[in-house]
Amino acid sequence: MTTLVRNAWYVAAWSSEVDEQLRRFVILEDPVLLFRRTDGRIAALADRCPHRLLPLHKGKRIGDTVQCGYHGLTFDADGKCVRVPGQDKVPTAAYVDAYPVEERHGIVWIWMGDKERADPATIFSLPQFDDAAWHMHHGGALHIKSNYLNVAENLVDPAHVSFVHPTTLGNSASENVPVHISTDGDAIVAWRWIRNSEPIGFFKAFGGFTGNVDRWHYYYLHLPCTAYIDFGSADAGLEIAEDERDRGNRVFALHFLTPVDENYTIDRWMHLRNTAIDTEEASVKIDRMFEIAFSEDKEILEAVHAEEQRPKKRRPIRIAIDRGPMVYRKRIAEMLERERTEDASAPGNGAYVFHD
Amino acid sequence: MTTLVRNAWYVAAWSSEVDEQLRRFVILEDPVLLFRRTDGRIAALADRCPHRLLPLHKGKRIGDTVQCGYHGLTFDADGKCVRVPGQDKVPTAAYVDAYPVEERHGIVWIWMGDKERADPATIFSLPQFDDAAWHMHHGGALHIKSNYLNVAENLVDPAHVSFVHPTTLGNSASENVPVHISTDGDAIVAWRWIRNSEPIGFFKAFGGFTGNVDRWHYYYLHLPCTAYIDFGSADAGLEIAEDERDRGNRVFALHFLTPVDENYTIDRWMHLRNTAIDTEEASVKIDRMFEIAFSEDKEILEAVHAEEQRPKKRRPIRIAIDRGPMVYRKRIAEMLERERTEDASAPGNGAYVFHD
Amino acid sequence: MTTLVRNAWYVAAWSSEVDEQLRRFVILEDPVLLFRRTDGRIAALADRCPHRLLPLHKGKRIGDTVQCGYHGLTFDADGKCVRVPGQDKVPTAAYVDAYPVEERHGIVWIWMGDKERADPATIFSLPQFDDAAWHMHHGGALHIKSNYLNVAENLVDPAHVSFVHPTTLGNSASENVPVHISTDGDAIVAWRWIRNSEPIGFFKAFGGFTGNVDRWHYYYLHLPCTAYIDFGSADAGLEIAEDERDRGNRVFALHFLTPVDENYTIDRWMHLRNTAIDTEEASVKIDRMFEIAFSEDKEILEAVHAEEQRPKKRRPIRIAIDRGPMVYRKRIAEMLERERTEDASAPGNGAYVFHD
Repeated sequence: MTTLVRNAWYVAAWSSEVDEQLRRFVILEDPVLLFRRTDGRIAALADRCPHRLLPLHKGKRIGDTVQCGYHGLTFDADGKCVRVPGQDKVPTAAYVDAYPVEERHGIVWIWMGDKERADPATIFSLPQFDDAAWHMHHGGALHIKSNYLNVAENLVDPAHVSFVHPTTLGNSASENVPVHISTDGDAIVAWRWIRNSEPIGFFKAFGGFTGNVDRWHYYYLHLPCTAYIDFGSADAGLEIAEDERDRGNRVFALHFLTPVDENYTIDRWMHLRNTAIDTEEASVKIDRMFEIAFSEDKEILEAVHAEEQRPKKRRPIRIAIDRGPMVYRKRIAEMLERERTEDASAPGNGAYVFHD
Repeated sequence: MTTLVRNAWYVAAWSSEVDEQLRRFVILEDPVLLFRRTDGRIAALADRCPHRLLPLHKGKRIGDTVQCGYHGLTFDADGKCVRVPGQDKVPTAAYVDAYPVEERHGIVWIWMGDKERADPATIFSLPQFDDAAWHMHHGGALHIKSNYLNVAENLVDPAHVSFVHPTTLGNSASENVPVHISTDGDAIVAWRWIRNSEPIGFFKAFGGFTGNVDRWHYYYLHLPCTAYIDFGSADAGLEIAEDERDRGNRVFALHFLTPVDENYTIDRWMHLRNTAIDTEEASVKIDRMFEIAFSEDKEILEAVHAEEQRPKKRRPIRIAIDRGPMVYRKRIAEMLERERTEDASAPGNGAYVFHD
Repeated sequence: MTTLVRNAWYVAAWSSEVDEQLRRFVILEDPVLLFRRTDGRIAALADRCPHRLLPLHKGKRIGDTVQCGYHGLTFDADGKCVRVPGQDKVPTAAYVDAYPVEERHGIVWIWMGDKERADPATIFSLPQFDDAAWHMHHGGALHIKSNYLNVAENLVDPAHVSFVHPTTLGNSASENVPVHISTDGDAIVAWRWIRNSEPIGFFKAFGGFTGNVDRWHYYYLHLPCTAYIDFGSADAGLEIAEDERDRGNRVFALHFLTPVDENYTIDRWMHLRNTAIDTEEASVKIDRMFEIAFSEDKEILEAVHAEEQRPKKRRPIRIAIDRGPMVYRKRIAEMLERERTEDASAPGNGAYVFHD
């Protein structure tokens, strides 16, 4: 049974990955051809000729049309067939599917489900994207041989950083600090504060803290595949309140998960920050730290996925820190069930409210 | 359901691939041992000891017999067991299957089906094989990760050359020229003439044409797996008739497909030509051009096969140039059905006649 | 249907393979974590955290406990959970399975079946392990891509050495010598004597024989996966009796098979000898000869296994030398049937007695 939710906006690519070349991206098991038209807009077509199935990226562009590399069938940027060599009439079935696509803030969003449900107003956004007090930096793409549910679960799980990222994003001070959980519309939020303790490696290297800090981690996981982690630190002497996080060094780490198939996920990551906003040097430094941390996640997540493929002898146990992941998996199951039964109007979000 | 037709002659190897060594060839999923006896004739045995299944090519030759490398069971070149070490009596079940094999014009033909149906008179041949006015040259072997039906279909499809081989075997002049189709006994014929146009790369390099030519492509596909393409060019000023092709530079490109299994096909290719018949230099030059063109086919055919393994969401469309491939697939389906129902005497060939 | 017998002692590793590091060994498809406690005893745990399934060897040791690398759950060397970060209570289901393990003569034995049936008294042993007149030498580990039944069968099959190991353990003098077979408790014994013939390569290199010898091969296969081969030679002039083998150069080659899964087997091999017992040089020399011979076995056994995965068209034949392997397979089938029906008390051993 599939774990892939179709009626959602996914990140297909960074804007920088799409140019005039014909390029293939596999999303939710479907091959997609992306290219930039002469007017700069992005075309997204099924990367498969309806005739003999040759991927269209093996063909060539002629203006804004794509000519198949096998028999020359030619499609415009909307997927309409404009030429069948050797005959005058174009069969009505000679088209390729086009996908709704939106480009914002250097991010290419795609809708892989029912087209009539694709509403650009529901695309994930943050006010900080357009806030001059914040700096935006696009990072890299992590290719993970794991089902996306494992990857997403990790993004509503503050507890793992103490053990998986002890030199960068976590340290032992947080090991036993309980995790709070709540829901906020289509987002699940997991957070905790570690007050008056040694700064983590990230903020030692980046924030220049010398004494103890108050540190926070807020994980926002928007269903199905978008997450951002609001984390930061402030001098413990400031005794800032939970809603005063802008007084400290604050970073949003964004993760856009693209399920390639049931066993492979791409995690495109970027960040926003409220300090050192005028220097690219800080961006490079932060990228290096994230690359260390995310490669640690990758090792864990691939090992978990591999182990899940082995025979299961016992039902996995659940512990206190699992509430975020559990809510996430339950909601995904509901989304899949709605898609399976084609009843997309059924209520679902907001049904789970946690009070700590 | 298998796509592999058993009751047919297949090319197992070029003669040059078979010598006194024990060599394994996999044909229609069956491992076959080929070696040349001391009298020069070729032996073709199942490459599997009937005792513990060790491939016999792991053993050694003793005269014209083969001794298994595990326990020394020994078989003659007809598959009869002549020794079982440790006992005097040879069990009646101790034999290996032998395959009918015929060697002609440097080509080793094998019959993988019911032995009683193997009639050497039905082996593919051309009068030009033995015509002193023609030069024969054995080429190479293309290993293609694709079901053989895709490869064969490509060999009754003149339309693809305009798009797949624009620098060698086709050019844009032929893009919109319709394809004719007919049947001729067990062969399907697809052809077209491109009159008074620029010569293709092949004949620029090989024929020395400077002005426009009349060009033809005749594709003969003999079921299930033998094809030759009669193609050539003549000075357009000659205005040759369709049956005067010997007045031009004429080449027969032969393709012998050997299905290794459902996902892998070997295409052994060679050619016959009516010009430059005394120079090996032309053979080398032609091989180089074919190698370029066939590697283009390989890329297309492997991509098509890979795409066929993905979930199909739509029924592929058919267009005018597909008539040859469609007849081919229909006839193969009939052959398979006859083999499945073991009624090999049912009529089948000749039922499809196309008039243009 | 599984071929893996669970209620038996298997060799998990040589003692030298287990140290203070967390190391993973896969046995009967189950991942096992082995490490040496501070007191030197070996701990054997399921290598899988019961929470999110991360292999525990990805975590770290803290004293004699193991901390999971994902969320820090911590287990003692018996598999008991001693810490769940973020909560005070440890759930009762938070444990990992521990396996009975015994270390003897540099060999680590493990029991993968029902714990209550694990009786250390049934672990394979030989009096020569503790006999000062014999030298013990641990060899290597052969990784074989084959089901263990093929590997084990080879260890109750004296006939193959004439053909598989013609330069080391066998020669043509034995090709036609019949094999005797009997059973002895849980062991199947296959043997033969080759009297007054040229010594095999092994004893030419090792024993220094110049003239003819009497040579013996006794194969003892203890179900399911332990074998030793008592082989040796004595000057033919001595005319030693069958029970006077200690008068000759005598070697026990021991093989401990560990099925990793249905397609992969590790064969750990070692030897005992009654000559040159004070020199390590002889051990090295013998290892080199065994490495040649066992790589010959590996090639055969992997080819047989690969061929077994192909469609079977005929039922394999059985010959006189197969009696040992046939008894072995029949007994394994009975063991599997008992495990399947959970009636481990049913009689089984000793039912097959062969008289030559």
